Amino acid sequence: MNYDQLALDLHKQYGGKITLKLRDGSQLDRDKLSAYYTPGVAAVCREIAAHPDKMPVYTWTNNLVAVISDGSAVLGLGDIGPRASMPVMEGKALLFKHFANVDAVPIVLDVHEPDEIIAAVKAIAPSFGGINLEDISAPKCFEVEERLKNELDIPVMHDDQHGTAIVTLAGLINAENILGRDLNSSRAVFSGVGAAGVAIMRLLKEYAPGLTIHAVDSRGMISSGRDDLNPIKKQLLDEGTIAGDVSGTLTDAVKDADIFVGVSAPGILTPDMIKTMNSDPIIFALANPDPEIMPDVAKQAGAAIVATGRSDFPNQVNNALAFPGIFRGALDHGVKKITGEHKIAAAEAIAGLVENPTVNEIIPSVFAPNLVETVADVIR
Amino acid sequence: MNYDQLALDLHKQYGGKITLKLRDGSQLDRDKLSAYYTPGVAAVCREIAAHPDKMPVYTWTNNLVAVISDGSAVLGLGDIGPRASMPVMEGKALLFKHFANVDAVPIVLDVHEPDEIIAAVKAIAPSFGGINLEDISAPKCFEVEERLKNELDIPVMHDDQHGTAIVTLAGLINAENILGRDLNSSRAVFSGVGAAGVAIMRLLKEYAPGLTIHAVDSRGMISSGRDDLNPIKKQLLDEGTIAGDVSGTLTDAVKDADIFVGVSAPGILTPDMIKTMNSDPIIFALANPDPEIMPDVAKQAGAAIVATGRSDFPNQVNNALAFPGIFRGALDHGVKKITGEHKIAAAEAIAGLVENPTVNEIIPSVFAPNLVETVADVIR
Repeated sequence: MNYDQLALDLHKQYGGKITLKLRDGSQLDRDKLSAYYTPGVAAVCREIAAHPDKMPVYTWTNNLVAVISDGSAVLGLGDIGPRASMPVMEGKALLFKHFANVDAVPIVLDVHEPDEIIAAVKAIAPSFGGINLEDISAPKCFEVEERLKNELDIPVMHDDQHGTAIVTLAGLINAENILGRDLNSSRAVFSGVGAAGVAIMRLLKEYAPGLTIHAVDSRGMISSGRDDLNPIKKQLLDEGTIAGDVSGTLTDAVKDADIFVGVSAPGILTPDMIKTMNSDPIIFALANPDPEIMPDVAKQAGAAIVATGRSDFPNQVNNALAFPGIFRGALDHGVKKITGEHKIAAAEAIAGLVENPTVNEIIPSVFAPNLVETVADVIR
Repeated sequence: MNYDQLALDLHKQYGGKITLKLRDGSQLDRDKLSAYYTPGVAAVCREIAAHPDKMPVYTWTNNLVAVISDGSAVLGLGDIGPRASMPVMEGKALLFKHFANVDAVPIVLDVHEPDEIIAAVKAIAPSFGGINLEDISAPKCFEVEERLKNELDIPVMHDDQHGTAIVTLAGLINAENILGRDLNSSRAVFSGVGAAGVAIMRLLKEYAPGLTIHAVDSRGMISSGRDDLNPIKKQLLDEGTIAGDVSGTLTDAVKDADIFVGVSAPGILTPDMIKTMNSDPIIFALANPDPEIMPDVAKQAGAAIVATGRSDFPNQVNNALAFPGIFRGALDHGVKKITGEHKIAAAEAIAGLVENPTVNEIIPSVFAPNLVETVADVIR
């Protein structure tokens, strides 16, 4: 189904997707206005000035996340700028509210250099209880997130990286269980070393240090012999996330691999490549909306389990499985930093929501009962 | 009545004052989610990328104002910083919603230099349909507002300046009418040359160029002979807003004046001073919560009409009479800049809402029927 016209119609009919309402649903008489605003509100200001940790007790920051983007890497549309990216950020706010009852304010930024983005986010940070970075292009997204995590005392998460990584790990946990295999003795090949690719690799490696990872970019395998690598790719080699011992093409890389993870471009993986992989290979073809290989084609070529980013095939890797519960938990439990342990615990919680995993159900639906509560519960 | 305990209780009970809800109140099934978020939302992004002026058609910015402060001049509490100022900004958002159905997001800034404030506001500006600056200290508030007005294409208004100025002008229009006098042949003396004082002077002078204004700060009358004036005071002399021909004290200044406007400190105006003013003087004693002189004392000393910032006396100068309608009108009519003409039209509209002005009713109540609609209607 093509949703373009429905999307345009609904957005126009309602004039956007979110609005504000007052928490106190009763009639606001003169006394209540004098308590919510001057002169009474001064007592609340004094209380927070004396006890800054009480800010969430008295203000809406207890339930509030900013969804922040500079519009530089929006969906498959690329660098469309802040204004055109607003519908996505407002959409994310809708998902936050709908799935987790989190208040989320979309903030689109008219600055694009890492230093400027960081300065703007730090300037407004006291307004919020958490920060969800969204659709910021690689490689600047790494520096922006890293510095904000270190310099702010509220949870910061770039969802394109970690939401995808958490759900991918959840799916792989169930996939390996079904096939009776162990990630620690597997070899995974990545196509694509952008925001999502980097975060998935790192999380898989943190979860299963014995996993061997090879990665391929547009110029071939990332290897220590190459002199054209950007800083993040060098870092992935240096820290041992990517094994840099082999060079070659994607065709060379996938031979005898157990797992393929694509976060790159449509159609890049061929049936012939799958036939050279180890038996019962696992294929995560996450390019959206057109995956690296179509699921039925991959299955015909011998893939045991296939996951994509699409809702019209089984095993959808959907960030909405993770971010609502992650921030629900962080806000409710006063978590200041989302760590690797949190992400692994969230992945295990999501994997555990599939009662009887099968090749066609390694990942739960976003409508699974208790999804948000289950994820939130492990973010402590 | 002391509202402190009620304020603390209500804020704690509800955990703040505002929350988000979805504009579309119907069940969000899989199809609607696919239209509000991926894949459908991409069509809306493309539409805005091609036609940036359509952003308000498809996003919540059509009804959205940011209430922005650095917490440097909050109520009578002074420089309490961004976090402790949040209850006031959230309170303003509550008033925006309650009175004018405007969605307002409170943003408190962790930066305090004018350049930093301007950079942060400009960075997030595409997220909003208007900007209400609030509780930013003088003199930096002048530069911050001026530059943002010039550099952004959405309406920007520092409410502490212009909200107060509009309502003061509204009250003076009715007061002069009751007394059969003309502002153009009157003399007004100001005590206080801060954010509100400067804006009131300038608006009165724009409305009635024949009005003579003298102003007094903590060191006496602002006059061209003084060498200790800050840039804004010099500018007020240079542009002819303040008549700098006389020097002296407040006592000297108020002698034979028709109007006193206090935006300074409690108790600064004495009954003896009022007795030296022209007959039937008008007193606006706006220091809050304790005015420059108490209304009953001023009346006993001969004041014809007294206004204060307090709700427990007649003639309350309350910004909430102006800002909700101003922004309602600007959003609804696509106004990009709030001009002097807008402010005068708003003041006249507010003055006109008092059907039969009397000395005890020169200013309407914030609960006056059609208040917001009447003000919004003239912001075009």
